[in-house]
Amino acid sequence: MAVDPGPARPAVLGQNQYGKAETRVVRITRDGATHHIKDLGVSVSLSGDMDEVHYSGSNANVLPTDTAKNTVYAFAKEYGIASAEQFGIHLARHFVTSQPPIHRARVRIEEYAWERIEHSGRGAHSFVRRGQETRLAQITYDGSSWEVVSGLKDLTVLNSTDSEFRGYVKDKYTTLPEARDRILATSVRARWRFGWTGEEQPVPDWEESYAETKRHLLQAFAETYSLSLQQTLYRMGARVIEHRGEVDEIRLSLPNRHHFLVDLEPFGLKNDNEVYFAADRPYGLIEATILRDGREARIPVDLTHL
Amino acid sequence: MAVDPGPARPAVLGQNQYGKAETRVVRITRDGATHHIKDLGVSVSLSGDMDEVHYSGSNANVLPTDTAKNTVYAFAKEYGIASAEQFGIHLARHFVTSQPPIHRARVRIEEYAWERIEHSGRGAHSFVRRGQETRLAQITYDGSSWEVVSGLKDLTVLNSTDSEFRGYVKDKYTTLPEARDRILATSVRARWRFGWTGEEQPVPDWEESYAETKRHLLQAFAETYSLSLQQTLYRMGARVIEHRGEVDEIRLSLPNRHHFLVDLEPFGLKNDNEVYFAADRPYGLIEATILRDGREARIPVDLTHL
Amino acid sequence: MAVDPGPARPAVLGQNQYGKAETRVVRITRDGATHHIKDLGVSVSLSGDMDEVHYSGSNANVLPTDTAKNTVYAFAKEYGIASAEQFGIHLARHFVTSQPPIHRARVRIEEYAWERIEHSGRGAHSFVRRGQETRLAQITYDGSSWEVVSGLKDLTVLNSTDSEFRGYVKDKYTTLPEARDRILATSVRARWRFGWTGEEQPVPDWEESYAETKRHLLQAFAETYSLSLQQTLYRMGARVIEHRGEVDEIRLSLPNRHHFLVDLEPFGLKNDNEVYFAADRPYGLIEATILRDGREARIPVDLTHL
Amino acid sequence: MAVDPGPARPAVLGQNQYGKAETRVVRITRDGATHHIKDLGVSVSLSGDMDEVHYSGSNANVLPTDTAKNTVYAFAKEYGIASAEQFGIHLARHFVTSQPPIHRARVRIEEYAWERIEHSGRGAHSFVRRGQETRLAQITYDGSSWEVVSGLKDLTVLNSTDSEFRGYVKDKYTTLPEARDRILATSVRARWRFGWTGEEQPVPDWEESYAETKRHLLQAFAETYSLSLQQTLYRMGARVIEHRGEVDEIRLSLPNRHHFLVDLEPFGLKNDNEVYFAADRPYGLIEATILRDGREARIPVDLTHL
Repeated sequence: MAVDPGPARPAVLGQNQYGKAETRVVRITRDGATHHIKDLGVSVSLSGDMDEVHYSGSNANVLPTDTAKNTVYAFAKEYGIASAEQFGIHLARHFVTSQPPIHRARVRIEEYAWERIEHSGRGAHSFVRRGQETRLAQITYDGSSWEVVSGLKDLTVLNSTDSEFRGYVKDKYTTLPEARDRILATSVRARWRFGWTGEEQPVPDWEESYAETKRHLLQAFAETYSLSLQQTLYRMGARVIEHRGEVDEIRLSLPNRHHFLVDLEPFGLKNDNEVYFAADRPYGLIEATILRDGREARIPVDLTHL
Repeated sequence: MAVDPGPARPAVLGQNQYGKAETRVVRITRDGATHHIKDLGVSVSLSGDMDEVHYSGSNANVLPTDTAKNTVYAFAKEYGIASAEQFGIHLARHFVTSQPPIHRARVRIEEYAWERIEHSGRGAHSFVRRGQETRLAQITYDGSSWEVVSGLKDLTVLNSTDSEFRGYVKDKYTTLPEARDRILATSVRARWRFGWTGEEQPVPDWEESYAETKRHLLQAFAETYSLSLQQTLYRMGARVIEHRGEVDEIRLSLPNRHHFLVDLEPFGLKNDNEVYFAADRPYGLIEATILRDGREARIPVDLTHL
Repeated sequence: MAVDPGPARPAVLGQNQYGKAETRVVRITRDGATHHIKDLGVSVSLSGDMDEVHYSGSNANVLPTDTAKNTVYAFAKEYGIASAEQFGIHLARHFVTSQPPIHRARVRIEEYAWERIEHSGRGAHSFVRRGQETRLAQITYDGSSWEVVSGLKDLTVLNSTDSEFRGYVKDKYTTLPEARDRILATSVRARWRFGWTGEEQPVPDWEESYAETKRHLLQAFAETYSLSLQQTLYRMGARVIEHRGEVDEIRLSLPNRHHFLVDLEPFGLKNDNEVYFAADRPYGLIEATILRDGREARIPVDLTHL
Repeated sequence: MAVDPGPARPAVLGQNQYGKAETRVVRITRDGATHHIKDLGVSVSLSGDMDEVHYSGSNANVLPTDTAKNTVYAFAKEYGIASAEQFGIHLARHFVTSQPPIHRARVRIEEYAWERIEHSGRGAHSFVRRGQETRLAQITYDGSSWEVVSGLKDLTVLNSTDSEFRGYVKDKYTTLPEARDRILATSVRARWRFGWTGEEQPVPDWEESYAETKRHLLQAFAETYSLSLQQTLYRMGARVIEHRGEVDEIRLSLPNRHHFLVDLEPFGLKNDNEVYFAADRPYGLIEATILRDGREARIPVDLTHL
């Protein structure tokens, strides 16, 4: 029943990968009446010696994606979840080292943050989801070298002044007036790659690194007097490179969430940068990679699932 | 060209309303270098003497929805936005009192919360969206009486213990085992109606009322040892009624965000309430109204746009 | 451990309901190598003698929501799914007649349509999801009387001419110019209630009724020269009432999906109703009920989950 | 005010691009009373000599994203929209050839399909959105060479039989039972790259190519007896390569939309592959590139916005 396209195959298999996506795992750790929570969505992607399953349908080299899911749950018990990055390292190492046909594993994780509900009752096991940004981690292992990329998405920020946009190119289709004082708002999507590539190097403190990188992104956004969103983007990325030695590269994708000043003159009112229309679409989209001098860029240009 | 279905009309017009939905307005207030921000989505719905526009297409009584949008922006300038509720009151009063064919105005508002970015630069005009729950307000005015309903949605909470589910009905389709210790998680959708119905009564402090009501909802969730989600729901609503005299009625809609204990025995592991699968669908859905004794229920059973 | 608010209870329980939401069931029927498919999302909502579970946490009257889910699957096998409406009737009858504490059952169903993939291979068991509107049904039973409401959502339609908007009220906030030829586009959300209330009456042909009602909605939209979206809405509802004797009432909620003519004059171009910007928000929202003369309106004003 | 990180710059700029995303344009073409409609979302991304805007905030080389939006609308008038691909070619050529600092333009387009509403009224200017898959196109031009990638997303398909999954690897975390007859369902995400790279070559018929490629994807899915989703994926891609000479490469991303057979035995019922639970998460995810023999792979491994 298997389909073999045979020797004169005009259509050949290129890069391929497979796995289980979005396994949702909640891990509770109990320290007496005080509980801790980690809440992840884990996506595993495996590649290796997989030609036959595509060409003939033979599953002899295929570890089921259902097994990848089971492994996520089993490892949550066996290893706990100290950080998304560390958990992903355990998983990636397992798939590559335990299954010879698998030559590369990539684990992508979304982490949802919770904070405690302050209350006067007994125990500390009540949480409310923080709901701000989603934390991201991607761990790739090929049996010899590691790549760890962390990131975040949906971190929405706004400066209500200290932003201009002037001196740009005008062509026959340009109608935009120059702005000396505008709202600058964006929803930060960021990925940063660690210099760490192997277990002989000192391992970064993933939790502290995330918290500090987020803090630097926010502060650079807040403290930059902006002449363009590109300039703000560069300052955000550069600040991370300057302050976090463990990060070699950062890619930022910043939609320009336009806030247009509403024309109130027809109603006899003056709008002194007070009333804005927050537009949905279209939006500007500014994307760039900032690198530590001398390092190579490896994060893909288009930020995806991660 | 107008279509008049004529005297023998078998299809008659019932309740109808129209307006502009989801006008997004951001209002900045400047106190020197310190800025304040209010970020709303405003939906206006008008009804009144509107038979002819439906039957014959005559727009003689129709204030355009575009004008409703303009009014939102103009009022943001003229009145500012002290609170979503107060802003809605200004709008609703305006439409009913300025346009004779309009007999009722209902204003629905979503509010998105921002917090300041702490930084060492000058000024205080940088914000990050908080991203937790969305605040809601609905103001209805018919020319004589007011109804204000406030609320929230997407407030996700979780207790990692102190929840059971036992002693329920078993029929031939029941397979669920009883649980003595489970995770209880929900995403709170709540609406509460104020006793305030007119301008001669003391007006509630809308901002303080919202903050306190949210706090009571969280604390009741955290402090209740739960025998069922219905019981937790009742305690949440009752606590608001007991502590907030300005609230006459509250309706809660609580999806039971199931967290299933993963069976780790096939892997030789014991799951001591540590590893859970967070399921999406299906989910339990528990809904109820809690009333101040003697008051009438007016919030619709199905919580909607608001 | 149970919380009893005691005799001096200031917070009393009002309307309440509970059940399992969004149980996703796919039913395959095999007629030799020709298969048929029904794909539903079923939400069950039960109410009755449920005070104690709220006040004290006693589950003695509570059929678990997990059982409601199981029942959906078992009934898909036992009864098949002739139509969403018929399937809902089986379910609603079961819950009310088999469980004395349950006095009312409401079943809400979303149906996703599939069509066959035309191909030259053997068998007829390949499908592609149609992806247009989602079909809806709501069945309510209180032990004596039935209410069936069918509907649809996300049916997006557009007329590229034969639509005006003129002669409306102008107040001080009105800036909209009159339009003699505009695009009229909307995404139809409709609910219609059947006159059928009990099993002694002839049961409508649910499948044919749905197909014809959808057809009439589309045709009325297409054939009406529109002076306002309200007029179009009325014609759509009236056409259903006029042609489908089994329908007593229909409620329509029509967002005005604005398509603004782009000003091309700055580029030396004339826009003869050719190039439009399709806006997201804000949007007009026109809602109304159309009734068969003499019948009572029962569909809630705000269309919700259903 | 401009920030110049100076000569000892540790953080250097890597790949960068900017533009306007999701400009929504509807183009009506009038052929008497018969109208035609094209409905696109257009995202423009420009790159080139843009170091200074990042480092110092100088906008001297920056064509505003607002101008990109205006150009989309102006070109919809000037050139019409024969196809998404042809429209993108006009836009990309314009940006690169008219603005010296811009060295590369990439235009990404989503197209939403409409079909006519059949009715007995006059004219042919009424449409209903088809709602099935979204068509995609990406056009990239660097001043000398073209790359055109077309695609689709959200094309959901299902085979109710003729799918197995057996003979796979079992490790200590494997619990999945083998399946001899299962539902196979997926939501197709595909991108295919044309061999066409320049204007001296014959230009493909973009509309016919799209329709035929979609047809081949559907037929290969329907006609393949599946031993694994990888095998089905390969057959889908290979069939396109075999039948469409203009396509050099296709990348497919196929989520395995699991339909689990419900265990009805506790209810005394036998489930002969009739009743399934359609799960949301987690899901298998199978991704691969299929190439014309001898051609190079250029489509990124992770399918993104496009």
